[in-house]
Amino acid sequence: MASQSSEPTRIMMAVNESSIKGYPHASISSRTAFEWTVAKLVRSNAAGFRLLFLHVQVPDEDAFEDMDSIYASPEDFHNMNEKDRIRGLHLLEYFVKRCHQNEIPCEAWIKKGDPKELICSEVKRVKPDLLVVGSRGLGPFQRVFVGTVSEFCAKHAECPVITIKRKPADAPPDPIDD
Amino acid sequence: MASQSSEPTRIMMAVNESSIKGYPHASISSRTAFEWTVAKLVRSNAAGFRLLFLHVQVPDEDAFEDMDSIYASPEDFHNMNEKDRIRGLHLLEYFVKRCHQNEIPCEAWIKKGDPKELICSEVKRVKPDLLVVGSRGLGPFQRVFVGTVSEFCAKHAECPVITIKRKPADAPPDPIDD
Repeated sequence: MASQSSEPTRIMMAVNESSIKGYPHASISSRTAFEWTVAKLVRSNAAGFRLLFLHVQVPDEDAFEDMDSIYASPEDFHNMNEKDRIRGLHLLEYFVKRCHQNEIPCEAWIKKGDPKELICSEVKRVKPDLLVVGSRGLGPFQRVFVGTVSEFCAKHAECPVITIKRKPADAPPDPIDD
Repeated sequence: MASQSSEPTRIMMAVNESSIKGYPHASISSRTAFEWTVAKLVRSNAAGFRLLFLHVQVPDEDAFEDMDSIYASPEDFHNMNEKDRIRGLHLLEYFVKRCHQNEIPCEAWIKKGDPKELICSEVKRVKPDLLVVGSRGLGPFQRVFVGTVSEFCAKHAECPVITIKRKPADAPPDPIDD
């Protein structure tokens, strides 16, 4: 027999918001990666797995433009950060609910900073058995401009990584969106 | 509920022989990838999965040196190829037996040619849900000289790919060996 520990298989999933619809909507690639993981790996064995959802929020450099700069105060910033945090929690709520529907144990948390760096440092800290990341499946030309969180993680994360590409049918007309 | 088809999850595994011990011994990285897949993905849900073992044999360019060239005939070549094929079957037998021990349904077959090209073309043909490849976990300098079947597959195979690195403790003193 292969060594089957009684510990569940811990799968970390990095999820983000839709770049078209914004919070609290999950991106198509995050949802695709989640549904694939449940249908193909967890299957009917919910008790054998534990899903760990990480959402990394990118600090908004244009935050100043969103508010009346004359009235901007430390209090305004605090409220803005709080609003961001709540939007992030609503995003995670979507995945936590989907897990509850499937009776899959899960955890979820938010970090702020550079997604690729934070995903890798959280892998180091949390030590999952597997990291699943969604990918927009961009061509080489688009990749250069859009960035490649999934490629960076596949290369640098200290655990096995699966990259799930979006189905072509799910891709929006402009592949840079979402 | 996520869409859980009654079809098992089909996982293709590319396996090869040990570069130190030769046939019929499986390489450390193939065995590590197999044991990881059983322990972390299949777990106790054997009926939910089907493992597809592909072994690609590299045509031996030095074959002439192995035999007395004066007596070499088409018949000799035929016998040599036959011997190769049987050694490949013995390698696959190892994994098939391990599957039987765990009651995991499986298939196994051999192809001859360039491993990275053939793994990707077999993925195209067989359409597994997932490809698992072992990796020796070489540093960037060694990678240049040793080749990177796992990196090529992760990039080009038309299905999700997991690369399983060998545990550092299992690495032989010379990382190029296996």
